[in-house]
Amino acid sequence: MASNLVASGPKPVIQHTKNDLQASCSAKLRSVPSQGAQKASCLKLKRSSFVASDAQLRSTLQRSCPKAVKAFTVSAAAAAESKAEEKGIEKEEMIEAAPSSLLREEADATGMRASFEKMIREAQDSICAAIEEIDGTKFHEDAWTRPGGGGGISRVMQNGNVFEKAGINVSVVYGTMPQEAYRAATGTAEKGEGKSTEQGKAGRIPFFAAGISSVMHPKNPKAPTVHFNYRYFETDSQMEGGPRGWWFGGGTDLTPSYLFTEDAQHFHGTLKDTCDKHDEAFYPRFKTWCDEYFYNQHRGERRGIGGVFFDDMNDRDPEELLAFATDMANSVVPAYCPLVVKHKDDEFTETEKEWQQIRRGRYVEFNLVYDRGTTFGLKTGGRIESILMSLPLTARWEYDQVPEEGSEEEKLLEACRNPPDDWFAL
Amino acid sequence: MASNLVASGPKPVIQHTKNDLQASCSAKLRSVPSQGAQKASCLKLKRSSFVASDAQLRSTLQRSCPKAVKAFTVSAAAAAESKAEEKGIEKEEMIEAAPSSLLREEADATGMRASFEKMIREAQDSICAAIEEIDGTKFHEDAWTRPGGGGGISRVMQNGNVFEKAGINVSVVYGTMPQEAYRAATGTAEKGEGKSTEQGKAGRIPFFAAGISSVMHPKNPKAPTVHFNYRYFETDSQMEGGPRGWWFGGGTDLTPSYLFTEDAQHFHGTLKDTCDKHDEAFYPRFKTWCDEYFYNQHRGERRGIGGVFFDDMNDRDPEELLAFATDMANSVVPAYCPLVVKHKDDEFTETEKEWQQIRRGRYVEFNLVYDRGTTFGLKTGGRIESILMSLPLTARWEYDQVPEEGSEEEKLLEACRNPPDDWFAL
Repeated sequence: MASNLVASGPKPVIQHTKNDLQASCSAKLRSVPSQGAQKASCLKLKRSSFVASDAQLRSTLQRSCPKAVKAFTVSAAAAAESKAEEKGIEKEEMIEAAPSSLLREEADATGMRASFEKMIREAQDSICAAIEEIDGTKFHEDAWTRPGGGGGISRVMQNGNVFEKAGINVSVVYGTMPQEAYRAATGTAEKGEGKSTEQGKAGRIPFFAAGISSVMHPKNPKAPTVHFNYRYFETDSQMEGGPRGWWFGGGTDLTPSYLFTEDAQHFHGTLKDTCDKHDEAFYPRFKTWCDEYFYNQHRGERRGIGGVFFDDMNDRDPEELLAFATDMANSVVPAYCPLVVKHKDDEFTETEKEWQQIRRGRYVEFNLVYDRGTTFGLKTGGRIESILMSLPLTARWEYDQVPEEGSEEEKLLEACRNPPDDWFAL
Repeated sequence: MASNLVASGPKPVIQHTKNDLQASCSAKLRSVPSQGAQKASCLKLKRSSFVASDAQLRSTLQRSCPKAVKAFTVSAAAAAESKAEEKGIEKEEMIEAAPSSLLREEADATGMRASFEKMIREAQDSICAAIEEIDGTKFHEDAWTRPGGGGGISRVMQNGNVFEKAGINVSVVYGTMPQEAYRAATGTAEKGEGKSTEQGKAGRIPFFAAGISSVMHPKNPKAPTVHFNYRYFETDSQMEGGPRGWWFGGGTDLTPSYLFTEDAQHFHGTLKDTCDKHDEAFYPRFKTWCDEYFYNQHRGERRGIGGVFFDDMNDRDPEELLAFATDMANSVVPAYCPLVVKHKDDEFTETEKEWQQIRRGRYVEFNLVYDRGTTFGLKTGGRIESILMSLPLTARWEYDQVPEEGSEEEKLLEACRNPPDDWFAL
């Protein structure tokens, strides 16, 4: 695998133009770089140019293009096989403290890469501060790097006063995607072009990805769980005619065990207000997308009551989209924190706690069975503890548990099965 | 989908010969029949000829043939998509009491289908009786049928005196597999034969499957969890030159939270003795196969300390293999029950209980991420409660939990990471 393209190639100059739209499908592809090869070719990089933990950001690269998903599936399976053959996965290297930048080279210190990293680092700081204030305890921080490029910072709070488990990760990934994935995404494979020739096998397409992701599970069953994730992606190629793409994606969604309509309206309303500042078409579109993505198909129910989810966003000026992603990340605290403050000291029964635990079981089911970031991260060798940080501290599976008719538990379930088209019309 | 082949075609006559070996790879394919079509074409069947719950037995059809796995993946994904388009999955029909036979037609009342069903029904009865005697409480029984053929019986014990959760399922499935899956398995697709012509699309290959599967999770962290599954499979075709195969598969494996070498030796020893009666080559081969299958790749550890696992068994007289499967199912009680009796009243600390809960989390990870039967069952619309019966009542995920060096917890983990080649040499 020619991952030296990633390690030592010049930083591609990304021209954000409307022509990029066509290339954007390929941006959702991702590769599983040979970490061994990366290690060898990256030793010349400075230790301080912290590199790749691709685990966390695998979730960012696989959202919306069916062709890309198919190609990725094949390539991930092949990579997993190859890793298994290698007898072991290259471990991330833990470092003492988070570096000032997770970017690799000085050339990345300006432009969108730097702007986006700055945004997610600041969001991590401000959201952690808000959660620490509510909980009264501090996050534990782990930072790591990989020989091949990129890096990450996990902040985790476990068994706090208010939160059972809360984690906020940021990470930066430098990787490459295989030619096959590019061809599948662009349709050249179907036309019979570019079959597995030597040339085709050798060339891999570099990408850059950066993102923040978080899940927070409070203890009180009346206080909801929140998840959010914002990410930026670039793809480029040294080859003539290679793909050159970029896109933004992300979302924020709520998973309560008990439904309070006014809480749902506050949460959705805050997200809607933020969306509306940028484009009034955003909220309706991203609300529906969210309901579709977080779907536990085997249960016939959503993981929670949704929020917003978007991907493949490159149809306007990148600075506008950065501003949108920034506002969305900054809306997590006003959308979510008041709900936790409101319910953290609510009284509850043992039955209500058990229902919360059953809902946590469904959360585990979604994340392990359907969530693309989680499943690919697990199968291809990411930093497991950061990927699985999203799982609750505890969960429960009762055989054939069915809520009583007309109960509060059934009311929540109904909202997960048939989410209202308009939360504000209730 | 021509599922009328299943519903109304004559029972295929299975000739068990060594020539079947060649066809056996195709036997590991499975189809996701159009339940709607089955319903329409099966209405003429007597209600008492209980039909298809394919959920439980999906686990039986996907074990060992890589080509088949790939073809199945594609077909399952397509089927899931088509189901999603149908807006809802046909529900199994619950019935008042378990019928005397789950087989569909009188023609199935003799031969291997009947013999195998008799064996698994008797095993369900005898193992349930042994567990009830230890626990002091009774299993709850649910029986069901589907319009399209087959049926199942789930027995579940939850929050008993000794067992946190225990379940034993039997099920019988009549289904069809798509031509594409057959072609992929036999390699005709690669040779460019039988491409998606009208003829190729219309013909589907019928199969029959029957099996027993079980997971039992005790409360006491010193008492181990056991899983077992035994199954029989047939495939046939009305078309000239179509596949005609049959095979046996199964296994029994142990998942302790604490390792007691003498317990591991008793468990493996009982299984080995049973294997040795039939073929001294069985135990070493099936022990290794078990360690390979129950592997949580992202953790770099097995789910537990193994046992035996085998599949694709059709290289000797089917009566011999039935006798082997019968002996294996009957060895569950002597292999496992003494260990529960020994440890069910052991003293334990809160830390030991938490460690058990963490190991239960790993169990959930394996079943939801890797276990083929579970993941396909979930994605293609089986009886969810029977599929997920295998999950523990409760589980736990702590961030970056690492056992202390030299602790009992680390000792267990080491056995899961590097299982001894020979348990009896310890």
